[in-house]
Amino acid sequence: MRISVFITLLLFYSNVFSQSPSNFQETALSKGRAYEDLKYLCKNIGNRLSGSVNAQKAVEFGFAKMKDYGFDTVYLQPVMVPHWERGKTESCNLVKGNKFEPLRVKMLGGSVGTNGKTISGEVVEVKSFVELEQLGKERLKGKVILFNRAMDPRFRDTFRAYSNAVDQRGDGAWQAARYGAAAVLVRSMTLKKDNNPHTGTTRYQDSLPRIPAMAISTEDADRLSTELKLGYKVSVSLSSSAIWFPEALSYNVIGELKGIEKSLEIISVGGHLDSWDVGEGAHDDGAGVIHALEAIRILKVTGYRPKHTIRCVWFMNEENGNKGGLTYAAIADSLKEKHIAAIESDRGGFSPEAFSVDGSEDFIKAIQGFVPQLKETGVSEIYAGYGGVDIGPLKKYYKGINLIGLVPDPQRYFDYHHADTDVFEAVNERELALGAAAIASFVYLLDLHL
Amino acid sequence: MRISVFITLLLFYSNVFSQSPSNFQETALSKGRAYEDLKYLCKNIGNRLSGSVNAQKAVEFGFAKMKDYGFDTVYLQPVMVPHWERGKTESCNLVKGNKFEPLRVKMLGGSVGTNGKTISGEVVEVKSFVELEQLGKERLKGKVILFNRAMDPRFRDTFRAYSNAVDQRGDGAWQAARYGAAAVLVRSMTLKKDNNPHTGTTRYQDSLPRIPAMAISTEDADRLSTELKLGYKVSVSLSSSAIWFPEALSYNVIGELKGIEKSLEIISVGGHLDSWDVGEGAHDDGAGVIHALEAIRILKVTGYRPKHTIRCVWFMNEENGNKGGLTYAAIADSLKEKHIAAIESDRGGFSPEAFSVDGSEDFIKAIQGFVPQLKETGVSEIYAGYGGVDIGPLKKYYKGINLIGLVPDPQRYFDYHHADTDVFEAVNERELALGAAAIASFVYLLDLHL
Repeated sequence: MRISVFITLLLFYSNVFSQSPSNFQETALSKGRAYEDLKYLCKNIGNRLSGSVNAQKAVEFGFAKMKDYGFDTVYLQPVMVPHWERGKTESCNLVKGNKFEPLRVKMLGGSVGTNGKTISGEVVEVKSFVELEQLGKERLKGKVILFNRAMDPRFRDTFRAYSNAVDQRGDGAWQAARYGAAAVLVRSMTLKKDNNPHTGTTRYQDSLPRIPAMAISTEDADRLSTELKLGYKVSVSLSSSAIWFPEALSYNVIGELKGIEKSLEIISVGGHLDSWDVGEGAHDDGAGVIHALEAIRILKVTGYRPKHTIRCVWFMNEENGNKGGLTYAAIADSLKEKHIAAIESDRGGFSPEAFSVDGSEDFIKAIQGFVPQLKETGVSEIYAGYGGVDIGPLKKYYKGINLIGLVPDPQRYFDYHHADTDVFEAVNERELALGAAAIASFVYLLDLHL
Repeated sequence: MRISVFITLLLFYSNVFSQSPSNFQETALSKGRAYEDLKYLCKNIGNRLSGSVNAQKAVEFGFAKMKDYGFDTVYLQPVMVPHWERGKTESCNLVKGNKFEPLRVKMLGGSVGTNGKTISGEVVEVKSFVELEQLGKERLKGKVILFNRAMDPRFRDTFRAYSNAVDQRGDGAWQAARYGAAAVLVRSMTLKKDNNPHTGTTRYQDSLPRIPAMAISTEDADRLSTELKLGYKVSVSLSSSAIWFPEALSYNVIGELKGIEKSLEIISVGGHLDSWDVGEGAHDDGAGVIHALEAIRILKVTGYRPKHTIRCVWFMNEENGNKGGLTYAAIADSLKEKHIAAIESDRGGFSPEAFSVDGSEDFIKAIQGFVPQLKETGVSEIYAGYGGVDIGPLKKYYKGINLIGLVPDPQRYFDYHHADTDVFEAVNERELALGAAAIASFVYLLDLHL
């Protein structure tokens, strides 16, 4: 046997026997690093809003990890990011005569503060922007608007309920400002009745006054609502030292496995490294960046040599600006890189159940054939749907690119999302590992297919 | 239109529009009672081993609930159950010179105690019964055997790993007694490395001495193993006040929705009411009895009138004897009841993902057609497999009966199973509700199909 034939056969057999979805899965579950890596990110760094010291530490952690795991090319991609801080104090008190009862609140991300002052006002409860219009300026001027439309519990897909409620958080402040409101309280975006306020982005319109916006726990929102329904006048007094700083320099963290056949064709796999400045950003999106890191580490340690270049991308600034995703796509285009697919994990570290694909019908049909090989990871379906926020901007430059989102079981996600409860302990080791196994297997199958 | 035609049409439309899997699901998720009922069982009653005061309270709770929810026939079915108690004290200390370091242990259920004495011995670690035989009497006599074969983490189905490890717990004591061992320590049946001992049944053989058997936490098992591997002599000293009492009178709790067409044909839906005497028996099997109760409550409140009689059964004594299941089947036979199918939930209150069916190939093939209507509950598969312990004895009397088990996501089950951590807080409200929705939908489809 000629040596070249022998080597070819050896490579063939080593590929057949050591790389396969079942092998990736076994590696993830019995020799995984995901859980300890996530623990470090959560416990030794902590939450990491864009522009913060922790965000910079997280960048350095990612760079060191990708180097440590032997990825072929590891580099930082500069990204200018918004820099907002909630500051040292924030409070909202229910005023009862001369008594103050504290409510469980957190400023929404990006909200203005109160500049050392206190804003007081009577609370008016609404459930929609239409209601604001019906009430009109006369009844809303100087008031504190409580947006209190609850997430709808009826559907298994909690993201559906989130989509139908989150306009209150994103647009409530400027919508209320149109009618002269003094501030807004927004019912937390969670299906749980508890004491935890859940933050998240709020937006303003340049033509309208910027008024403070706070998330309020579902229990306290219900409490205010009950008092209003009983006919009581409800007044609150709030303050916040939230503040905007100039844009800051930050980075996407990137590492690759170089392709051996089509090295110029890139499949990106990522999540976002930034988090809100609460909890530890464990599910959102510590799990996602660790999924991407671990998936590519698994491909590497099992000896898989991809045809295409597989790129691990830890995006910065998904939460309040998506500057990481926008920068990544623009630079890819300016460098004339060839991007053929991108995969994102940004729905938590729960048991994987599907992949959601923003791509052509033919592509989706073809990759639905992967399902039997993904089944042991828990993935039972591949369907047409959304890819992800970070990878979304690639569409602008790469017509027809396939964007794919990992879909884990969504039951518990909004228990933790953007709240102090989103900590390492809320993540289960096996569920996290299965997500990484699902992505590793999917990338492998995609790499063979494309 | 004749009134009878009108009424027929009305019934038809009310059935079509108010009863369907999507309606059951909405009821479970937005007007569910499962979570609060489970909370009561866990917090106001607590764990409930057969023969205990709590088990009796749980029987009374079940009876009251089924009455309260308006089930047609509610009754208690007497069952004689084993009555074992771990007693007030149990301990195992690592002996180092004249120092004692406590190890985290719990007696295995059914183990003998030490009769006020202390048993001391050198620890010998084994991973299988074959190893016992290889070591032989000479090296095992008077020793404390540590069974330390870990559950295998590599497979998504954690029950597979459990099946492959649980012989150590069930048979370790008598197997070690064959070689004159003084006592056994069994590595806890969990994939977690932590401090929680997990109890569970152990068995004896009449012809062999009964020696004490304890579960030891995985961390402490690893610790002993490390010391042994380093060549140290490891000795422990253990005691337990575990004690057997005479058989006690207890009950299965049964309630029905009477069938309107084939009322003599019975579909049973159940879980087991007893639990081990640790934690709160929340996942094992509080979730299961609440699933059954809630599923049938949902069918009732949505106005569904079943063709067949649907029977909710809370079985007593699954954990250490299965006397509830055995009695239920024997009485059914003696009364010449016609049982056509039985469904059991005994794998925890996690997101449902499948039904496992012990039935004919034709039956399984036919009901696989239910999957599209179960999908919104998370059930993506119906496959041939195991039904459940409680419903198993029906097979003896009803040849060809179809036994069906609910299969939730098994990743977290053994984190809690038979341990102090199996408490209400370990159950997620939505995951629990989806299990009830899956069963309600399945029963409905089965009732229409059969």
